[in-house]
Amino acid sequence: MTPVKSYNLARVINPFFEMQTVLVLGAGRSCTSLINYLVEVGKTMPLKVIVADQDLEMAEMKVIGVSYASATKFDVFDETERFELIHKADLVISMLPAAFHIHVAAVCAGLGKSMLTASYVTPDIQALAPEFEKNGGTLIMEMGLDPGIDHMSAMLVLDRIKADGYTLTGFETFTGGLLAPSDEDNPWEYKFTWNPRNVVMAGQGYVKFIQEGRYKYIPYHRLFKRTEIIHIPGHGYFEGYANRDSLKYLDSYDLHGIRTLYRGTLRRPGFCKAWDVFIQLGATNDSYEMHDVPAMTHRQFINSFLSYNPHDSVELKLAHYLNIELESEIMYRLRWLDLFEEIPVGLDRGTPAQILEHILKKKWSLQPEDKDMIVMWHKFDYLDGTGDPHQIQSHMVVTGTDDLNTGMSRTVGLPLGVTAKLWLEGTIKLSGIHIPTEKSIYQPVLTELEAMGIRFEERAIELAAKV
Amino acid sequence: MTPVKSYNLARVINPFFEMQTVLVLGAGRSCTSLINYLVEVGKTMPLKVIVADQDLEMAEMKVIGVSYASATKFDVFDETERFELIHKADLVISMLPAAFHIHVAAVCAGLGKSMLTASYVTPDIQALAPEFEKNGGTLIMEMGLDPGIDHMSAMLVLDRIKADGYTLTGFETFTGGLLAPSDEDNPWEYKFTWNPRNVVMAGQGYVKFIQEGRYKYIPYHRLFKRTEIIHIPGHGYFEGYANRDSLKYLDSYDLHGIRTLYRGTLRRPGFCKAWDVFIQLGATNDSYEMHDVPAMTHRQFINSFLSYNPHDSVELKLAHYLNIELESEIMYRLRWLDLFEEIPVGLDRGTPAQILEHILKKKWSLQPEDKDMIVMWHKFDYLDGTGDPHQIQSHMVVTGTDDLNTGMSRTVGLPLGVTAKLWLEGTIKLSGIHIPTEKSIYQPVLTELEAMGIRFEERAIELAAKV
Repeated sequence: MTPVKSYNLARVINPFFEMQTVLVLGAGRSCTSLINYLVEVGKTMPLKVIVADQDLEMAEMKVIGVSYASATKFDVFDETERFELIHKADLVISMLPAAFHIHVAAVCAGLGKSMLTASYVTPDIQALAPEFEKNGGTLIMEMGLDPGIDHMSAMLVLDRIKADGYTLTGFETFTGGLLAPSDEDNPWEYKFTWNPRNVVMAGQGYVKFIQEGRYKYIPYHRLFKRTEIIHIPGHGYFEGYANRDSLKYLDSYDLHGIRTLYRGTLRRPGFCKAWDVFIQLGATNDSYEMHDVPAMTHRQFINSFLSYNPHDSVELKLAHYLNIELESEIMYRLRWLDLFEEIPVGLDRGTPAQILEHILKKKWSLQPEDKDMIVMWHKFDYLDGTGDPHQIQSHMVVTGTDDLNTGMSRTVGLPLGVTAKLWLEGTIKLSGIHIPTEKSIYQPVLTELEAMGIRFEERAIELAAKV
Repeated sequence: MTPVKSYNLARVINPFFEMQTVLVLGAGRSCTSLINYLVEVGKTMPLKVIVADQDLEMAEMKVIGVSYASATKFDVFDETERFELIHKADLVISMLPAAFHIHVAAVCAGLGKSMLTASYVTPDIQALAPEFEKNGGTLIMEMGLDPGIDHMSAMLVLDRIKADGYTLTGFETFTGGLLAPSDEDNPWEYKFTWNPRNVVMAGQGYVKFIQEGRYKYIPYHRLFKRTEIIHIPGHGYFEGYANRDSLKYLDSYDLHGIRTLYRGTLRRPGFCKAWDVFIQLGATNDSYEMHDVPAMTHRQFINSFLSYNPHDSVELKLAHYLNIELESEIMYRLRWLDLFEEIPVGLDRGTPAQILEHILKKKWSLQPEDKDMIVMWHKFDYLDGTGDPHQIQSHMVVTGTDDLNTGMSRTVGLPLGVTAKLWLEGTIKLSGIHIPTEKSIYQPVLTELEAMGIRFEERAIELAAKV
């Protein structure tokens, strides 16, 4: 952990040395880096840290031996408990599932408390903005990795291009939570580093983006076929598939008039073609329960999406149905997951998506020796005053050290931790609801993150001048 | 119109010649055959027919010059009007959109009136069963074509196989509303003969069926690729795709233990492959609104689902994307719909599904000279006492005479009309809620329908005996 450097600044801005209390709601794996960071901050300023979780033991583990930190049991649905805990705090950091933030935010708004989350602003939360402003509380949302670091690192360059008087023509941005390169024989080069259910359901619905001034739409069942290859110097090749609605960034990044706007997710090459097998089969459907689940094996799960044919193997039927080679990278990835084995699924009931998630967890759960890797990549196209095109690419790669101190935990937790520190010491002075697209937020946060190794490399790409 | 033959029977059962009143809710195209039939019935028994519709003029057109029939304006949301109209009637036939039946059924249940519809029983309607029974009213639902004639014609054979002591092993059933063969150059051999929106949305979600004792599932984006070819003597070849949930017929037809159960929709060969283009593009998605719709042309609509590429035509991009030949039947069908033309769509806003429906209506609306054709086909597999396999196939083909007197209107309206007559004369004596899977309903109704040309041809198929 890099030492926190703004001790003196904190003294100046908070000259009374008042003890402040930070309440962290949630103590799961993704909170490790955040809590560790707050404990470090507590060494440099008068701070009390309360970690609250449904699982008291897990919360206690996170603050063991820290005199100024305590753990408490917390049930988000207990109104009295919720009110009392928040009442005691100056700042609340909610690491709860996104749907629960509203219950916390409503109390904070009423009490004029401040709050941080890594989740998207929802309309019901946005409706609390006047109350936050009236009572002097600050709510900063979308302050994790994605959303969070993506906003800040993109706006840093976008604001500079604008300030230089240049015209932005294209913006593409991709993020991925992957495995760091290793010797392990995992052809997917992937394990779950975030909510497995979200990974299984990723991309369902539709996708919208803008390409060369044209609105483009991709349905789910084509999404993982329409990938882009991205090269990041020193880290090799990745493939990206589009995220749901890139168009909402027209507003939040003020990009109206842009000719290309595309937001996506990164995987290692070959992942998407193999994942597409599950989509083509219908194995990611979450809208109906399958029959005879208790007796189902992995092989039967796959077979239930294929035609009846007593003469051909499941492998052959699958390969033929989806027009893939029996001896291909795709089939090898499926075999590695034991999908053609007569291994019992091990569930009593479930939708296809739930059963698939359960099967994938058997091979895709992080092991103690696994290191994850967070990759973010931006591409900015713009025209200078003479109309010549230019391009900037920037990227960040953060690797975890083990299955607890993951890159995911660092890149989600540290932006929240740094923002907490900046708020506690008075560097961030705002009221109402904000996301870190504002320079007054992203500039100090990115500076601190950089000191902790969460940094972007930026390079200008040589382009042929417009003919 | 074949003369109604059970005049004498009516006298016997309703010896007091009491005047009875039938209220028909709805006077649209699909009600033509029903109202004409009821007018015929009125020539043979003391009957008053009231046709009620939002559109009074349309209702009046349907009963012009018939002394014992009248038209009235009707708004289903006007509670008082609804109550008063139903109060006057002995029997109500609701041709309203399915979602409105509950408002009518609730009043009928309370007043002990009887009611007929061609729609599926929903849980909220089923909940009225005790009230119908208590007050002596009958509600017969699913009494149109599909559901309706399908139930009756299937149960006729299924009950016979069971009565003979044979073991049913497989049941497949397909229905389609198509165009009758004609000289017109319409490569789809299809136009809208029923709710166009339902045609555009058909198959969305998932599909479940049983094949050789195995549960099988097909996702939407694969549905129109997994078709079956069906031959009907004298009518040629058709292709069938699976309907949503065949498994619900396990209960309603009492088919538990069956090894194959499959329910589907019929089209002319080649239709499904071409329709699949819209699904692959995402053009049937109804979950988001498209951008710039007022300025959109047919060609741009298609292009919005394809990658940007300034060098290739929309046709080439589409053919390449979906791996189809530029000079193929599929592309010809798309060209015939003017999909590659710079013709304005003509809408201000819309989802992909709404825009596609609007474009299709330009070529797929029934013209006065068009004749539609209803096709239903069943296949029954069973084992005799010695375990030898047998198969029966039965089919019905009904052709319309023009764009008003359609096969669809006859096959939906006449089962309702016949059931009304049988109820009025006392042949059907039931209370509570029923569907025509019961012999006491399907036997007299099928007999009357046969006399009007709605008849099934049945044939035993020669099978090799089990080796």
